[in-house]
Amino acid sequence: MPGNKAVAYIEPHRVEVQTIDYPKLELQDGPGVNPANVGRQCHHGVILRCVATNICGSDQHMVRGRTTAPAGLVLGHEITGEVVEVGRDVEFIKQGDLCSVPFNIACGRCRNCKEGRTDVCLNVNPDRPGSAYGYVDMGGWVGGQAEYVMVPYADWNLLPFPDKDQAMEKILDLTMLSDIFPTGYHGCVSAGVTTGSQVYIAGAGPVGLAAAHSAQLLGASVVIVGDMNAQRLDQARSFGCETVDLTKDASLGEQIEQILGVPEVDAAVDAVGFEARGHGDQAGQEKPATVLNSIMQVTRAAGKLGIPGLYVTGDPGGVDAAAQEGSLSIRIGLGWAKSHTFTTGQCPVMRYHRGLMKAILQERCTIAKAVNATVIGLDDAPRGYQDFDSGVSKKFVLDPHNNLADKRAIAA
Amino acid sequence: MPGNKAVAYIEPHRVEVQTIDYPKLELQDGPGVNPANVGRQCHHGVILRCVATNICGSDQHMVRGRTTAPAGLVLGHEITGEVVEVGRDVEFIKQGDLCSVPFNIACGRCRNCKEGRTDVCLNVNPDRPGSAYGYVDMGGWVGGQAEYVMVPYADWNLLPFPDKDQAMEKILDLTMLSDIFPTGYHGCVSAGVTTGSQVYIAGAGPVGLAAAHSAQLLGASVVIVGDMNAQRLDQARSFGCETVDLTKDASLGEQIEQILGVPEVDAAVDAVGFEARGHGDQAGQEKPATVLNSIMQVTRAAGKLGIPGLYVTGDPGGVDAAAQEGSLSIRIGLGWAKSHTFTTGQCPVMRYHRGLMKAILQERCTIAKAVNATVIGLDDAPRGYQDFDSGVSKKFVLDPHNNLADKRAIAA
Amino acid sequence: MPGNKAVAYIEPHRVEVQTIDYPKLELQDGPGVNPANVGRQCHHGVILRCVATNICGSDQHMVRGRTTAPAGLVLGHEITGEVVEVGRDVEFIKQGDLCSVPFNIACGRCRNCKEGRTDVCLNVNPDRPGSAYGYVDMGGWVGGQAEYVMVPYADWNLLPFPDKDQAMEKILDLTMLSDIFPTGYHGCVSAGVTTGSQVYIAGAGPVGLAAAHSAQLLGASVVIVGDMNAQRLDQARSFGCETVDLTKDASLGEQIEQILGVPEVDAAVDAVGFEARGHGDQAGQEKPATVLNSIMQVTRAAGKLGIPGLYVTGDPGGVDAAAQEGSLSIRIGLGWAKSHTFTTGQCPVMRYHRGLMKAILQERCTIAKAVNATVIGLDDAPRGYQDFDSGVSKKFVLDPHNNLADKRAIAA
Amino acid sequence: MPGNKAVAYIEPHRVEVQTIDYPKLELQDGPGVNPANVGRQCHHGVILRCVATNICGSDQHMVRGRTTAPAGLVLGHEITGEVVEVGRDVEFIKQGDLCSVPFNIACGRCRNCKEGRTDVCLNVNPDRPGSAYGYVDMGGWVGGQAEYVMVPYADWNLLPFPDKDQAMEKILDLTMLSDIFPTGYHGCVSAGVTTGSQVYIAGAGPVGLAAAHSAQLLGASVVIVGDMNAQRLDQARSFGCETVDLTKDASLGEQIEQILGVPEVDAAVDAVGFEARGHGDQAGQEKPATVLNSIMQVTRAAGKLGIPGLYVTGDPGGVDAAAQEGSLSIRIGLGWAKSHTFTTGQCPVMRYHRGLMKAILQERCTIAKAVNATVIGLDDAPRGYQDFDSGVSKKFVLDPHNNLADKRAIAA
Repeated sequence: MPGNKAVAYIEPHRVEVQTIDYPKLELQDGPGVNPANVGRQCHHGVILRCVATNICGSDQHMVRGRTTAPAGLVLGHEITGEVVEVGRDVEFIKQGDLCSVPFNIACGRCRNCKEGRTDVCLNVNPDRPGSAYGYVDMGGWVGGQAEYVMVPYADWNLLPFPDKDQAMEKILDLTMLSDIFPTGYHGCVSAGVTTGSQVYIAGAGPVGLAAAHSAQLLGASVVIVGDMNAQRLDQARSFGCETVDLTKDASLGEQIEQILGVPEVDAAVDAVGFEARGHGDQAGQEKPATVLNSIMQVTRAAGKLGIPGLYVTGDPGGVDAAAQEGSLSIRIGLGWAKSHTFTTGQCPVMRYHRGLMKAILQERCTIAKAVNATVIGLDDAPRGYQDFDSGVSKKFVLDPHNNLADKRAIAA
Repeated sequence: MPGNKAVAYIEPHRVEVQTIDYPKLELQDGPGVNPANVGRQCHHGVILRCVATNICGSDQHMVRGRTTAPAGLVLGHEITGEVVEVGRDVEFIKQGDLCSVPFNIACGRCRNCKEGRTDVCLNVNPDRPGSAYGYVDMGGWVGGQAEYVMVPYADWNLLPFPDKDQAMEKILDLTMLSDIFPTGYHGCVSAGVTTGSQVYIAGAGPVGLAAAHSAQLLGASVVIVGDMNAQRLDQARSFGCETVDLTKDASLGEQIEQILGVPEVDAAVDAVGFEARGHGDQAGQEKPATVLNSIMQVTRAAGKLGIPGLYVTGDPGGVDAAAQEGSLSIRIGLGWAKSHTFTTGQCPVMRYHRGLMKAILQERCTIAKAVNATVIGLDDAPRGYQDFDSGVSKKFVLDPHNNLADKRAIAA
Repeated sequence: MPGNKAVAYIEPHRVEVQTIDYPKLELQDGPGVNPANVGRQCHHGVILRCVATNICGSDQHMVRGRTTAPAGLVLGHEITGEVVEVGRDVEFIKQGDLCSVPFNIACGRCRNCKEGRTDVCLNVNPDRPGSAYGYVDMGGWVGGQAEYVMVPYADWNLLPFPDKDQAMEKILDLTMLSDIFPTGYHGCVSAGVTTGSQVYIAGAGPVGLAAAHSAQLLGASVVIVGDMNAQRLDQARSFGCETVDLTKDASLGEQIEQILGVPEVDAAVDAVGFEARGHGDQAGQEKPATVLNSIMQVTRAAGKLGIPGLYVTGDPGGVDAAAQEGSLSIRIGLGWAKSHTFTTGQCPVMRYHRGLMKAILQERCTIAKAVNATVIGLDDAPRGYQDFDSGVSKKFVLDPHNNLADKRAIAA
Repeated sequence: MPGNKAVAYIEPHRVEVQTIDYPKLELQDGPGVNPANVGRQCHHGVILRCVATNICGSDQHMVRGRTTAPAGLVLGHEITGEVVEVGRDVEFIKQGDLCSVPFNIACGRCRNCKEGRTDVCLNVNPDRPGSAYGYVDMGGWVGGQAEYVMVPYADWNLLPFPDKDQAMEKILDLTMLSDIFPTGYHGCVSAGVTTGSQVYIAGAGPVGLAAAHSAQLLGASVVIVGDMNAQRLDQARSFGCETVDLTKDASLGEQIEQILGVPEVDAAVDAVGFEARGHGDQAGQEKPATVLNSIMQVTRAAGKLGIPGLYVTGDPGGVDAAAQEGSLSIRIGLGWAKSHTFTTGQCPVMRYHRGLMKAILQERCTIAKAVNATVIGLDDAPRGYQDFDSGVSKKFVLDPHNNLADKRAIAA
């Protein structure tokens, strides 16, 4: 049995590559594992050899010390891998299958799963509905920024690629199916983006860029991305988006008007969440409701707001007592006057990943290019986290088994 | 030409019955009329003789002095009446038709109307999308708590009843089609209420009761109504609802658990809005976000929240500076963790009124009884406003032409 | 290990109660079992003690000799029972649970199941998508008109009732959850039935009556049921439906006009299928497309047609060569001119059974009464088949373990 | 007042350019005008100077003599033009506006229009719901293959382009908004085409090509177009479609399997209708149900079928008595076994044209190129009809005022 190198959270602003136990088809005790989950049998699961596993912006919330994540928690919920061991209750997934893993862990047997709401599965997290690999307060499923990882309920959760060679050619695109591509797409679908829509995407991080590319795929006529990071705005322009530089004096509405002729869009997506920051006089200050309030401002009456950006129930580092429990000062009166609809929460990845996979395999979209997928070794993960936190416009893809050597060259 | 008695707002806590001009097919200057609308030709309109015209909770916001409504503004947006004069460009509505008037004024010619979003028509209010009769900052269309009123775009807006005699028999039910029945129904539809749903309705005022009855009509298995007013809770129980008394020590979730066995419902409707008040330690204090926050608390993950309760962009009497501009401290993190969807805004009445009318005419529902429709004369409107503000569980229906004399006896 | 009495098809117009093997968690060879399914392991399954198991109109297609069903095929796909043995891979269903079994067998792991389309599961029937217990060409899953039956993929398929005692009180209603109540409801949902709809249901057999009651539950203002069987029309009237007697001279449209004032309904459901018969000059003759064509005739433009009535791909007894391969002469031009939408196929029971269960348990509907549920012993099944075929307006519920003795008295 | 040259149907296989009356804001008697519509006042209408007006495949049904169209009926329902006169009840459309005209005439005031179902407006055609310009049995609204045309209910029906110069640059794309682009798009939407879908489009005429391009815009991963006309298949390949040549020996399913690896698609569109012809042994024979039956064959279980191809209620030239009244032998049993949904009827253009316009103006699609838009003079219309009937892969755009001279060169 091989060893298992993995990326663990140690303390604020520090992750480390450690050797942990090779996974079993049983959830074992460890940092962050919910006691009620310890010893849980997973004959319905498989062991995956991780082929590509990405660093996500939501990992940064933990690494920045904004959560109660314990030292030693193994990170990683964006996983693509090859099946190397199959539990006895797995019937359709086969050894050797190369698969995408939705970051939502779901049982496939509860009311919510049956209704397609794998984002809030009732059976995988003893604390509340919904779970994810390698995440604090999500049940304790071990993260996949590792050589190997256990995936429970494999017949339900996994999306096998139809042809392994073809898949390896597109692996940098396909690795985005585990989270950010469906997440950005869900934001757009929730916002009602369709043929001809004029769309505003708040945030040019990887989820924002994925949302922008999704909007294009959904037929949007104009996609405008806003951020304060010049490099990320450059990246957005590189695939045909319009941009709004929020560090400028002109307001968001004014900048949108310069692009569209009117200060309003049909639909907007919040791809930032609670760690939003102010601009102008308030540059650099954390303004957790600023994105939500600004998208209400610029979205037309009858519009819808997709909110894949994370808002939390508890934030020890919040700007005030209210923010620390997830309460923000939201201009709900404005949204009400415009009859806005707000859709929040994790993306139910399973609802979208098959269609997006087919779009990738037929070269209908180029998500890796849009988010600037950048391959690094597993051992380089600590530097990846640091670079990403500094605001570079790169989506880091870890390559635990050196399967993506050729992609490293290409991406460099 | 007859005179035209009407109910006008005078000053906080005071309305008055005045004689105003008989309406023309032109919008004329007067208290609260937007200058840009003065002189607007309405050959597409009709003059209605008001047969039933109700006092609405949202009128109370003005009468309580919580808005900038000017003295003399003629109130009333819940109108049912008979056509007495037809504009030259009206083609399908005929003199003598007895019709329900959606409180939303809509042009039937803009993008939003074409998409069924009459709640945010672009052409009737020079200030912003959306309008209503007799309401501050809604364009200045003269209210219908009057003997006569002008209804523009009559072919588009009006719902004629198929048989006048049959309609007069059900007039106390049909008068609820202009606003609160569709509004309550919209809250339920937005909240995803369907066959078998367990539903919580926050607020047992007329809109709350209408929402509760709508939930029953939509097949809900259990409808729970919460309020702090014992008389209104009695009313809710009178047609088969369960109730939660928010003045009790037990929390909302605990009281729901006593009813359902679990502290959660499938769907929830906020039928209160920004004038919500606290309970327990905070009894009587205005707590504008308390309803929104509490329905997130008790709605299951993957649930939806219907928010027909009014939230405003400006509230001179708000509890603090934020509330005065419509910003409230909302526990968005909690909603996000549960993947909630929030639907806000006015109800697009036209989407629902025809189906609800058919349900009334075939005796599939008894909305007048549910909301305790109570007929009074137009001259009694000032007392009606006062009684309603005191919290009686009555929905006051004004009878300007003494057409409902028989219903007065019945309702008494 | 107990024996297992079961109802088997023997030859046209003859079924027999036989003793068959007690089920195992493995699909074994037998009459009608697809060779590719023989030996299939079902550790994900459970053994149920059948508490109520109904005779269905679609069983009659086999018993009338209209299919290639082999002698010895054990019938029964409408099953409610108590779990007596649990496979090793079942995690959430427990021994002792009293459960409803959707007649669709589904794996809970294929694309279609993940999309909620359990009616066309890809993994349970080697011949084509979609399966059912005790049915010819559906994979060979042994029927449940028996004392015991094996249910595969139990965590996915079964709906446990929350309280056993409460459930036994409502068992005659709950037993309709396995097929006809959801099937009728699906017909109505597909037809767009909603608050206020005026609906025509073609056919007053059990599925038609279930559709009619579903339409009421969905808020229909008028429900009209058509048939040529007077007793069944009486039954429809017994719970508030209007009826059309198709043996009369007046056409369907004329009779609808007498009821509604117009010869058109908003929505229509075909609860008959391919064994439809003509009337008037063509009384008694099989006219397989007559229902489809008539519902196009009477449904308004923009209406939708729900078609839960069975149409088959092969019918050895069809009226002509075309009908024998399932081709019927359909007036598609008429439907096209009215922009009709047609929804066909099995009902995906899982989409509806939970909500309908909650509606039953809270006494929001009385489906057993609507379809005239009539309890008989398993040994009386042959007579039940015969009586049902004769056109009595009864829905026969078999009681294999004499658990429903009190209900027999009540129903008699 | 100028004269008004227009294209009139004379007799089978013959159209003629005639000078007819300049239109008034009143519907006047003439060939094909419904008596009940003669003298109808249209103060809600405008007179358009036709800038581009296309020949449609459905015009060919009349010109081939397959309808009861009377001699002298002025043809043309695909109209784009500039407003030259405005009725007194028109409020928002202005003289000089360059607009697209949906081929559906709709009142904007009936139940169906209010529900967005402009394809079956209740008030414009005395014979049945639904209407169109220049078409037999559609009320008698004068066709727009003319210099000038009257458009009723102009505020409701017309889509003005935001910038006239920009619009004239894209006029060959924008002219497709009046019918075939929304019609093809509607076929795809009805068929459930979305990101990643594998789609089959039956027919490579202009509607089929528009459907194929729409499928691309909706994110389809593979679009397969089938026809028997080599030139039209070349055209389909020119913008990235796969093709199936139905004159080949290999069946449709086999050819699809060669492309996709499976003999099934996710979604299918019938862009042919009742004038479908057989192939193989039946080459050249009219086989009116062959397309419908073949798309059931190749669409996966749970799939949906979009049927914008025209099926008629009466066809004097039908292959047999059944076909002559629009009854076709359809393999409904196959569709039922696969749980197919069928959506038929005219496209409600208004639902889609704004979004498609925005997609065109922002160069997100190139519909003119996809359908091979080919500009000819109004006087050349007779030759255009003839060429189109011969099967050339061109979409003829008439240029009544010589406004598209530059486009003629480009298109040649």
